[in-house]
Amino acid sequence: MAKGVTKQSIDYAKWYTDVVLKGELADYGPVKGTMVIRPYGYALWENIRTAADALFKETGHVNAYFPLFIPKSYLSREADHVEGFAKECAVVTHYRLKNDPEGNGIVVDDEAKLEEELVIRPTSETIIWAMYKKWINSYRDLPILINQWANVVRWEMRTRLFLRTTEFLWQEGHTAHATAAEAHEEALTMIDIYRKLAEEYLAMPVYVGEKTEAEKFAGAEQTYAIEAMMGDMKALQAGTSHDLGQNFAKAFDVTFLNRKNQQEYVYATSWGVSTRLVGGVIMVHGDDKGLILPPKVAPHQVVIVPIWKSDDQKARIMEKVSEIKRRLQARGLRVLVDDNEQTSPGWKFNQWEMKGVPLRIEIGPKDLEQDQVVIARRDLGTKEFVRFDMIADTVEYLESDIQQMLYERAQKFRDENTHTVKDYAELKEVVDKGGFAKGWWAGSSADEEVIQTETKATIRCIPFRQPGGQGRCLYTGQPADKIAIFAKAY
Amino acid sequence: MAKGVTKQSIDYAKWYTDVVLKGELADYGPVKGTMVIRPYGYALWENIRTAADALFKETGHVNAYFPLFIPKSYLSREADHVEGFAKECAVVTHYRLKNDPEGNGIVVDDEAKLEEELVIRPTSETIIWAMYKKWINSYRDLPILINQWANVVRWEMRTRLFLRTTEFLWQEGHTAHATAAEAHEEALTMIDIYRKLAEEYLAMPVYVGEKTEAEKFAGAEQTYAIEAMMGDMKALQAGTSHDLGQNFAKAFDVTFLNRKNQQEYVYATSWGVSTRLVGGVIMVHGDDKGLILPPKVAPHQVVIVPIWKSDDQKARIMEKVSEIKRRLQARGLRVLVDDNEQTSPGWKFNQWEMKGVPLRIEIGPKDLEQDQVVIARRDLGTKEFVRFDMIADTVEYLESDIQQMLYERAQKFRDENTHTVKDYAELKEVVDKGGFAKGWWAGSSADEEVIQTETKATIRCIPFRQPGGQGRCLYTGQPADKIAIFAKAY
Repeated sequence: MAKGVTKQSIDYAKWYTDVVLKGELADYGPVKGTMVIRPYGYALWENIRTAADALFKETGHVNAYFPLFIPKSYLSREADHVEGFAKECAVVTHYRLKNDPEGNGIVVDDEAKLEEELVIRPTSETIIWAMYKKWINSYRDLPILINQWANVVRWEMRTRLFLRTTEFLWQEGHTAHATAAEAHEEALTMIDIYRKLAEEYLAMPVYVGEKTEAEKFAGAEQTYAIEAMMGDMKALQAGTSHDLGQNFAKAFDVTFLNRKNQQEYVYATSWGVSTRLVGGVIMVHGDDKGLILPPKVAPHQVVIVPIWKSDDQKARIMEKVSEIKRRLQARGLRVLVDDNEQTSPGWKFNQWEMKGVPLRIEIGPKDLEQDQVVIARRDLGTKEFVRFDMIADTVEYLESDIQQMLYERAQKFRDENTHTVKDYAELKEVVDKGGFAKGWWAGSSADEEVIQTETKATIRCIPFRQPGGQGRCLYTGQPADKIAIFAKAY
Repeated sequence: MAKGVTKQSIDYAKWYTDVVLKGELADYGPVKGTMVIRPYGYALWENIRTAADALFKETGHVNAYFPLFIPKSYLSREADHVEGFAKECAVVTHYRLKNDPEGNGIVVDDEAKLEEELVIRPTSETIIWAMYKKWINSYRDLPILINQWANVVRWEMRTRLFLRTTEFLWQEGHTAHATAAEAHEEALTMIDIYRKLAEEYLAMPVYVGEKTEAEKFAGAEQTYAIEAMMGDMKALQAGTSHDLGQNFAKAFDVTFLNRKNQQEYVYATSWGVSTRLVGGVIMVHGDDKGLILPPKVAPHQVVIVPIWKSDDQKARIMEKVSEIKRRLQARGLRVLVDDNEQTSPGWKFNQWEMKGVPLRIEIGPKDLEQDQVVIARRDLGTKEFVRFDMIADTVEYLESDIQQMLYERAQKFRDENTHTVKDYAELKEVVDKGGFAKGWWAGSSADEEVIQTETKATIRCIPFRQPGGQGRCLYTGQPADKIAIFAKAY
């Protein structure tokens, strides 16, 4: 842990893994593809979750919990969904183990074979709509605005901590509505909540828009997404919201008596963000020293490092440290005191910089005499002396300034690396040297596929904010009335 | 939902299921043994979880997340643990499905068979200790005080919602210590936190004590438990805390360099409470009208039911209702306004009584004229008129009074139905007519087994609070220095 992380410019992927492992955010689990989220990483996730949960509840959503096990047959009910999800799944076939009759530990009991295999949920539309069928009879039962916080499993051979693991944590909203318009509105409301979560809490600027036919969710009418630019100029899909139309209601035969006294299929949405957001925070803000955390979600917003030589100094300094801690906590700040005697102040500075704590307060014998502390900013690397009676105000101000600064810095980086392209040659050039390419688009799914094969870039979204007017499609040269954003993506 | 629940005296088990289903706390999932926790039940669980989580964090614990999948071989590492847990497990054998070549939906892809089968965690000691081996080198790395909130799976054929389901939600703490004494102390600290959670938040009095050899956790040196009495006089084990000694450290070869510079096995504890607590709350407080929720964990602490006939009345009443709601929320109270126009006030009264909301505020045109509302208590069924300007104070007082009253009522019920027994005949009589039997105990595990076979009662715990002195064992007649508590249990 004492050693630093690989420089971004030397190997960005290695830098990322170093930050995650050395910053003690996560570790590899014993089963290939699995991840252990360590306390520091989990505290970050908890803060993101708390923020998201409050935003959901403010907009009338409630939490619930549906089973992990989905009967295999459910997955094949919705035709597109089965293509998208039924493949790389963990399958439960037995429900009992027994002692090996030959004495080698335990073995699967062949007599305990399930009649129908169970799939560990890769996403819960199917099981939730099977339940909604029981609960929905009339328009009076609608809307249902349910969210669940859960683990899901999608078998992955190539693991990337937080970004691509076999099991991950997420939330999935599943709503049911009486009209197409209301479901559509809900899908848009939720993508805007994700935008707010990303921009206001994670300080992560995002493009908000619609997915193309080729990129949308398996079973959706329309998929909306927020797309962020990482430090290596690749895109991260950070959240999606789907207008599912009547597809799942039809697959699970969920009808309701509408106001005209007619049976009608229910309209649906689903939407989710996951622990992937932690990966996004790392890659949007991090630098060669490690992580830089936005104050709103940082597990520790301030770390206090006391410095002393004699026991007498220690007693006096720790008394002051307790007072400072109390004052900061009284403002609702999350404060950690690192008074570990096994490690030096210099080592602590490095460690907490690597772990991205927004502010560090240093206080030694001289500071005590002079009625001051040193406050160091993680984002700019600057230090300033602050008088005791000004500490709480200063910290509060700086936390808010850092939150703002991180957003602006990320936005500037993204905007500088988003290039308008006129034709395919320009697109290739941009994608090749790194960055987002935006340009007029009127191509087909087949065209997208060719572009992906040739450049590895995909359409991240058709952004809601459009310039208006018309142009020529960068690929087909046909008239186009929409701009699309292309990039390589995680 | 309009119809009431079965009377407790007619069929207690049916009463319980009615409360859960009609109160919309939970529903049966499509796979046998699984449960869907509906929003109202989940909100109750969230409040319990929030209270517990705060108690854990106050005592220095942090949250983390470990994988769902445990390699089969891990379960057999600790000899007792495998006996206790390895049997009724969900086993993942494959990681892919494919389209049925004969066109019948999807089938398991035989080519995607795992080399080693994976078990869905029934509890996480094994996988967590496999990770602790990577993280622990020296006494400086200790203690580790980790908790996780997770789903676990233990295959069950007979389902009872919240009490016994194949998948359930829980928290499991897993701590690692440098000395036996510190681990022992931790196990005791946590059982006391569970007592506090049960008594102060759930208004559920509990006996706190030690499990016998026969009843302790598979792999533990000692198991401590909190045991509550349900409305049918059966016991519910509501939480357990285990001193695991060095058993898991030895099984997973986890040693640390101690202060004397010697390698030593690490000492461990684990402890957990689950969604079973929801079942406990239902059965400790509920009555023939349905649920009665302790205010500290009730999803809605007050429901306001406005009553009107004309639109003009409606406008004036709803204005007042908004004001009352705002004032109560300003006190931090959880308030629901039921202004549904599809249902009558009488129907709403019944519904919210069934759902156990502690207080109901009724306000109609006459009340408005007279500057008052009616406040009804769910626990006592009493009603009183309260002046507008006294509403917030009165509600606050009543919530606290109900919390207290529920505890006292449950304690009185438990104490009245806990009988001191001198001999086995008396024990049989108590257990037969219902209740807890307490008496001197010096029997063996074999004796316990006979008693269980003959009476269905087990030793719930050897309570920490002992009368002192000696007596004669109720079963063997031998000298005994401890009292044990026997009961039939869920």
